[in-house]
Formats: sequence, C-alpha cells, structure tokens
Amino acid sequence: MNHSPTIGEYLIQRLRHHGVGHVFGIPGDYVLGFYELLHQSDLTLINTSDEQGAGFAADAYARLRGLGVICITYCVGGLKVANPVAGAFAERSPVVVISGAPGIGERVKDPLLHHKVRNFDTQRKVFEQITVATTVLDNPDTAYQEIDRVLHAAFRHKRPVYIELPRDCVNLCGPAGYQPIEFKNVSNEDALREAVAEAAAMLNNAKRPVILADIELHRFNLQRAAMQFIEKTNIPFASTILGKSVLDELHPLYLGVYEGAMGRDDTRQIVEESDCLLLLGNIFTDINLGIFTAELNLDCVISATAERITIRRHHYEEVTFEDFLLGLLHADIRQRPFDPPIVHNHVAPFEPKPDAPVTIARLFQQIDDFLADDTLVISDVGDALFGAADLHIHKRTEFLGPAYYASMGFSVPAAVGAQLANPKRRPLVLVGDGAFQMTGIELSTALRYHLNPIVVLLNNRGYGTERHMQDGPYNDLQPWRYSKLPELLGGGKGWEVRTEGELAKALEEARENTSTFSLVEVHLAPLDRSPALDRLAKRIQKRLAGQ
Amino acid sequence: MNHSPTIGEYLIQRLRHHGVGHVFGIPGDYVLGFYELLHQSDLTLINTSDEQGAGFAADAYARLRGLGVICITYCVGGLKVANPVAGAFAERSPVVVISGAPGIGERVKDPLLHHKVRNFDTQRKVFEQITVATTVLDNPDTAYQEIDRVLHAAFRHKRPVYIELPRDCVNLCGPAGYQPIEFKNVSNEDALREAVAEAAAMLNNAKRPVILADIELHRFNLQRAAMQFIEKTNIPFASTILGKSVLDELHPLYLGVYEGAMGRDDTRQIVEESDCLLLLGNIFTDINLGIFTAELNLDCVISATAERITIRRHHYEEVTFEDFLLGLLHADIRQRPFDPPIVHNHVAPFEPKPDAPVTIARLFQQIDDFLADDTLVISDVGDALFGAADLHIHKRTEFLGPAYYASMGFSVPAAVGAQLANPKRRPLVLVGDGAFQMTGIELSTALRYHLNPIVVLLNNRGYGTERHMQDGPYNDLQPWRYSKLPELLGGGKGWEVRTEGELAKALEEARENTSTFSLVEVHLAPLDRSPALDRLAKRIQKRLAGQ
Repeated sequence: MNHSPTIGEYLIQRLRHHGVGHVFGIPGDYVLGFYELLHQSDLTLINTSDEQGAGFAADAYARLRGLGVICITYCVGGLKVANPVAGAFAERSPVVVISGAPGIGERVKDPLLHHKVRNFDTQRKVFEQITVATTVLDNPDTAYQEIDRVLHAAFRHKRPVYIELPRDCVNLCGPAGYQPIEFKNVSNEDALREAVAEAAAMLNNAKRPVILADIELHRFNLQRAAMQFIEKTNIPFASTILGKSVLDELHPLYLGVYEGAMGRDDTRQIVEESDCLLLLGNIFTDINLGIFTAELNLDCVISATAERITIRRHHYEEVTFEDFLLGLLHADIRQRPFDPPIVHNHVAPFEPKPDAPVTIARLFQQIDDFLADDTLVISDVGDALFGAADLHIHKRTEFLGPAYYASMGFSVPAAVGAQLANPKRRPLVLVGDGAFQMTGIELSTALRYHLNPIVVLLNNRGYGTERHMQDGPYNDLQPWRYSKLPELLGGGKGWEVRTEGELAKALEEARENTSTFSLVEVHLAPLDRSPALDRLAKRIQKRLAGQ
Repeated sequence: MNHSPTIGEYLIQRLRHHGVGHVFGIPGDYVLGFYELLHQSDLTLINTSDEQGAGFAADAYARLRGLGVICITYCVGGLKVANPVAGAFAERSPVVVISGAPGIGERVKDPLLHHKVRNFDTQRKVFEQITVATTVLDNPDTAYQEIDRVLHAAFRHKRPVYIELPRDCVNLCGPAGYQPIEFKNVSNEDALREAVAEAAAMLNNAKRPVILADIELHRFNLQRAAMQFIEKTNIPFASTILGKSVLDELHPLYLGVYEGAMGRDDTRQIVEESDCLLLLGNIFTDINLGIFTAELNLDCVISATAERITIRRHHYEEVTFEDFLLGLLHADIRQRPFDPPIVHNHVAPFEPKPDAPVTIARLFQQIDDFLADDTLVISDVGDALFGAADLHIHKRTEFLGPAYYASMGFSVPAAVGAQLANPKRRPLVLVGDGAFQMTGIELSTALRYHLNPIVVLLNNRGYGTERHMQDGPYNDLQPWRYSKLPELLGGGKGWEVRTEGELAKALEEARENTSTFSLVEVHLAPLDRSPALDRLAKRIQKRLAGQ
C-alpha cells in the first residue's frame, strides 16, 4: 500500500535524516498535535523552564550536532525565542524554529484568536528578519518541498530557518511518490583552479605564513581538512575568540587566540608580522578583531569563507569554502621545516594557595589545570568569556561562547543542549552572576534530564564588565545565595567558595558528583578583572565617550 | 542663557510630563550613557533579573499609569522583550521601548559590531511588526518632534512604540525654542450628533438594554463617565474577562463576567436576551467571546471603540470613543426604574474545612473571601485566569490578566510593575506552576525594591490546561520546592499548603507579612479544574481535532 507521510511525519523524518535526536521547547495548544507526534516519534522532547532556554539550548545543540530544533507555540512561545535565534543568526548556528499556529480553517474572517498580535503573519515577518528562510506549511501539495528548501537553507548558510505549522495541517498528506531533494553547492571549476593556484603561489612565496582559524571551519565540518593542511605544510596557526578550540589547542604549531591589542602580545606579533595570512572561515566582528585593534595587512591576506574567497582585494564568488580548502590541501604547496613557534603554550600545574582569596587571573589558571579531555567549556558573556581566551582546550570544538552576539544568559541553557548533543562531554560552564540571574534557573532542565554540568559562577556582585565602563547602582544585583539553588529545584549540589583552597576542594567534589549538576559560586572582588577585560573596557570606554 | 536640552534630556522630560515615574530594564554598553542620564534624573530605574521581566513589568505599569517604559540595550536586550511588547500590542497597553544602539559614527562601512544581527535596522524592523510607531533618534534637528510623534501614537492607539537611541546621539542638542506638540483627536461634529442620536433612540426604545464593559474604557480613562452613564440610566452592566474589573464589581447593577458558553449561565442569559446591547471598548477576541460561543444579535448591538463606532451593521469612522460616550452621557436618555438584576453576586463568607484538601473551585471562593479593598488581583494564564473570572473585585481596574494574548509568565513581573505604578495597592498574584517556572524568579526584583506581593502558586504539577486537551510527558514539570525560593533569593517568606486550614493560615500570615513578598504554594490534584476551564478545554479539544 502506497501511503504518503503526513506533513508532520515528513518533517520529523527529515530532521531524523539530518541527525537530529532532540527537540527543545514548551507546548501550547496550537502545537499540541505536533507535540504528540514528536512524542510518538524517536525524537526526544526536552522541556525547558522558559522558551528562551529552549532557544539557547537548541543553538548549542546545532553548533555540536549540525542542526538544532526549537518547537514552540504561536507568538507567546515563538517571540520568546527571537533573541536566541538572532544570536544563532549572528554566529552562524543552524537552528530550525518550528512554530505551531492557528489552523487555516480558523483564520477565515481574520478573527482575534488568542496569541495573535497584529495579523496572522506577524510572527513570520519577525522571523524573516532573523532567519535565512521561512515557510508556512499550509499547502499539502508543496509542503514536502518547502521543508526540503528551508532545511537546505539552514545547511547552506549555517543559520536559522523558520517553519510555521498551522495545527489543522499537521495530519494532511502530501503528494505520493515524492523524492526528497538533496541540494548541492558546486564551484565553478575554472574559478576554483584559478583561486587555488593564486593562493598556493602566495603561500609558497611567503617566508612567515600563518593560518587564522575561525568558526566556519567547524560549521562546515572542515576541521579535519584544515588540520591535515597544517600538518602537510607545517604552517603555524592561531584562532579567534569566536573560533576558539576549532583546532586542537595543545598542538605544537598552535599560537593562541588572536584578538588584536586585546589578546596576548606574542600571538599578536606573529600574526601581524606574517607575510601571508590565510584566514579560514573568519567572521570579522569587533570582538574578534579586538574592538578593531587588529592590524592586518591586506596585501598579505587570503580569506576563505562560506560567502566567498577573497585574495588581497579581489573576490571569487563561485568557489565554495570546502572546494577551496580541499583544493589547497591537494595543491603543490611546499612543506616547511617543523618549527614550533616560541609561544608559552603549555598548561602550568596550578598550586592553590589555600587561604588566598580567589582572583580572576588565578581562577582561570586553576580552571585550566582542572580541564579534562572530556571537558566542554561553555562561557557566558563578560569576563567568563574574555578570561576564557587563554584556557587550553584539549579537543577540537570543545569551547562554546557567544563571542560575537554576546547575549547574556547563553551558557546554562547551552550546557543542556550541548550535553544532549554529545553525552560524552561534560560541560564546564563559566558564568557571571548577572547572566546567571537571567537563565541559570534552567539548571532545572539539567536536573530533569539527568545531566551533570559543572557551573562555575563568577560572583562579582553585579554587571562587572559595565562597572569598568561606567558605574552606578544599575550595575548592582540582588545578592542571591546561589548555592541554595539545589534546595529550590529539588536536586543538584551547591558550593560557596572564597579561597583558592575552597575552590580546589569544590572542583574536585564537583568532578566526583557525576549524577547531577554542580554549582560552584566563587566570590570575587567587584572590581577584579582579567587583563583581557582590562584592555577591552578601556577601548569601549573611549567609544562611549565618542572618541 | 538659552540652552536646548539634549536628546536624552528631552526624552526624559517628556516621559516625566506624561506621568512616568519608573523605567524598567537592564543596562548594556550601547545604552550605558542614557542609563547614567536616567540615574541622574528624577525617574527611578528598576533592574529586573532578565529583560523579559522588564517587559511584563512595564506592560502592567502602563495599564495602571497610562504609560510604561522599558529601557534596554541593542538586540540582546531588545529582542528579549519582543514577546511582552507583542502582548502589550494585542491587549492595548501603551509601552515605550527605548533601546540603546551603536553610534551613528560607528556604523560607517557596516562593521560587525557586537549584538548586531543582520543589518543595523534589523531590530527596528522586528519592532515595526509589534508596535504602532518607531523612530531612530539619529538627527538632532528632528529628534524632539520624533519623540512627540511616537509618544502621541502610544496614547492615540494605547499600544507600544519603539525609540532607538544611538549612543553618540544621547548628548546632542536639538533646535532652540522648540515647543512640544500636543496632539488632539477631534470628532466630526455632524457624524457625532448623528451617531449619538441613533444610539440614544435605540436605547430609549429598548426594553432590556445591557452594557458590556471592556478594557478600552480603562485605557482611555472613561470608567468614570461609563459609571455616570450607568447610574443616570440604571442600565445593568456586565464585563468581559479581559475587561474584568473596569467597573466596580460590587455595584448592584453588575451582572458578572460574560464569556458566552464559558461563563455563568445567569449572566449569559441576561446579556444574550437583551434587546439593546451597548458594547463599550470591546475587543472581540476568542477568549472574550467564550471561544466564539457568544451569541450576540447584531440587530441589537451598539459598539463603541477607539477605532470606530458601529451601530448594528454600519460604522461611524470620524467619531472618537470619548466624544461618543460623553455624548451619550449628556443625551436625552430615559432613566429606568432602579431594578438590580437577580444575579447571585455577593461574596459568601468562606468557612474553611481545616483538613480538606484544597480544590480549585473552593480555592477561588477562599481567595474571594480574602480580597481586601486594597487588593490588586493579577492572574497568569490557565486556571489562574479562568478561575479568577468569578472573583469579586472591589475597586475599579483592580484586576490584571493577559486574557487575550495569554502569554505565560506575565503575572509575577507584572506584580512588580503594578505595585510601583500604584503603591497603595497590594498585588495578589494567581499563577500556575508552569508560568511560575518561566518568570517567578522576578520575585528577586520585588525583594530588591521592597515590594510585598502575595503570590498564590497553584501547583498542579504541570501544564494543567493542556492536560485536559491532550496529555503526555511534555505537560510535566520538574517538581520544584517552591517555598524554598526565599532561601535562594535571600528574603521573602514561603509557605507550602495542602489543606483549606493550612491555606487560611498561610494567607493570614502573608497578609501580616507586609515587608517582603509572600509565596504560598498550594498543592492541587493534577486533573482538578474550575468549571470555566472544564468548558474551555472541551471547546479547544474540539478545535484541535479539527471540528
């Protein structure tokens, strides 16, 4: 018997086909029918406390698994994820937003159904601004094709897409005999050959070439190819803060994180003095460029991204990132002598001074010492992010942080998504008290689904980054007793520490506590800051003053 | 010396002029300069835990004070309030969104500044969908006028507006000698006379006229006029659930809340059998109309709203709501004999059965008995809202609930905004466990600013309304120990109750606890529900099944 799947079934099939195992969200009446379908499928539903948490969780899941899914109800659910979806857009994370909606049959005469804002297409219009493709699955004849088109856009651009599913269409069947469309991007062969030859010649002529690796290497699954190229040519490499950990940070040719004047001087010097800089998958954001303190000589730059290939000041539009990198890998580029750069790159064993109050600078050294091979570091915004730049991440792509969009509240829900995406990694969350007050309550979700992230809460009693730009009572916070959170949630473990000795003990106990989340509150002086934040704050302060 | 105010100063002056005393939000670097200006002004800044909380708080503030203000940073702050602002749009609450933004001088060459999504106008385009007016204050020559135009739109439509303030424009001065523009809506005199005469004739000819009062009476400050009209004519009146409490519910001519088949039968019968129904400020939403079970005979209907006046099936476009109602008040409409309707409307004294488990139906009777003259009831979505329909609210506009947009998580942050808007009222929050897990943490804000709401948390262990439509594990929640929340936040008082006796005791203790918030968790059976929810769930279940 030849029976087409329903629209809802087809959507679930395609998500499974693309490797999705979990869907994040909160149900509502307009999406209940599809929730029941999800529940009966082999996808696992993850309920967060608030929809915002589902948004950040799906973003982290997408960064690790290649696709993440949020499923929520119309407007009151959908508009709550506008911010996380915008962050996924900015930082190139392929998140699929599936929103329930009033049935087409209910929309006749434009009635004021609950959850409606202005018109029935208001939510879609909002998402048009923050996604690369949108669709409303209101026509069974085209619904399969629309699903394929929109999911393809998510893969092509590594950015969010929006699918609206009117509740009376979930169980309609599409056309019989439909074959899923597999899209493929191909390069113009001649343009590819020309671009690779030009880049190869520049690299071969260079005396001090350097590679700067960024997040698109990860998004387009080209980390292995990049590492092969590095090992074939022995060209040293750095990363940006957004791209931190895309390549192994314990590799002898690794130079550290480059962030212009914000970053380490030794790394900066080697990168900026290079006579041929190969940028792989870079996004030129302000923070990536050290608030525009980066000084790169365009005469020496080759930049390859998903959008285009640029050599010096000219562009190749019809060459894909993947084809270009594989082309370089197989081109005739000479191997240099293996000559590891003189960059202080090893992890010094950390000796806690038992009674010394914890300082930011020493905290990151202590954390660095604590990292294990299975640790996935997830930073929130502020010094949790800037200070993390110098951590030594052991494996590929084991650092996540909203280093461009910089939305506070990312890290705790992201830890939920990340650990479900890769259960072999244990998240270590670095989060300030300000960000924790926004979304830290999503540890409830970690508890419910038996996840065991370790959360290190940097409590400097306020919005610390802002204190250094301009201070006032608006940078203060209600002083929570964070370590009591497990009592509210009914599980998990909490610690409150002030000294290096207490922190060492808490971290070890947290490592042993594998069955639930661990929350380690670290008291810090309000005006303590990392050297990186010190430099950043001074830059931003100047801009604030209009200089 | 003749010195114009800066753009930032002018904006603050106009907000003060319109009665604003508080601004809700969280700072970020793009808005820090304006925050400092706010801090130095006589406006009071209220920091919430998350921006979402600021959104709901400002919405409630706007409903009580006539204007509410959210001030947040670019995108990572602004997009977090998309949902509360959409709710304010749907339910006609004049909220002003002020967003910091990158300076105009920083935007040259379209750099990737942090917090940017797609283009510099992405956030504005999103807010165009969910507000009635937007502006970017990037030109000192027009900035004053733009502020006046946009604030006027908020007043004219009682809906949100959006003001974006690039950080390098805050301290620029506008033109000297500018006079603020006071806009005024005027009716066409002839159309007004015709409409009032026609309505007066219908009312005079009617045997059983009824008034149905809704929220626009409150938004346009016409409650006193409506009550004068009722007392002049002795026409009985009902309200909708969205408009609940706009007129005194202890008045002898009050009929109760009309919600079609969802509401009480005695109220429904009188309303539907009326031969002349005067609708004052009604929004015809599905929930207001009892999920379209309302049966109103259009031959008998006069409907006056801010958009237009409709009599039977024809419309007057050039007549304002205010002029029409004042016209009726002064028209020659006969006074009927004072004949209070036979509707069971008094509050029965509640006698708790000490050991009886609390049920939803009895809970609302107990709450009704507990209401004081200074109580402001704030309902969240679900049975907290539906069950609240039959509470007897003592004063005008002392009930707030998202009865149309129905966004979960409204109530706790709304209590913060409401009590700051009117410190003479003490909020009583009715909230389910699902909604509380979304935004209940904003009790932190109540604590910080010394507010004392009483929160009654209806814990039925999940999304109770949905269980009755379609149940699955996706309607379950992590079982928090809600009464421990004060230990996390560092203040407030908590109770956990199961019986009517325990609830009575907790409510009395909460009443005495005037210095902090009180959180009373009430355990309920998961499938217990109010009669109103019973009827609603059955209607929605039918729609879900496509019937």
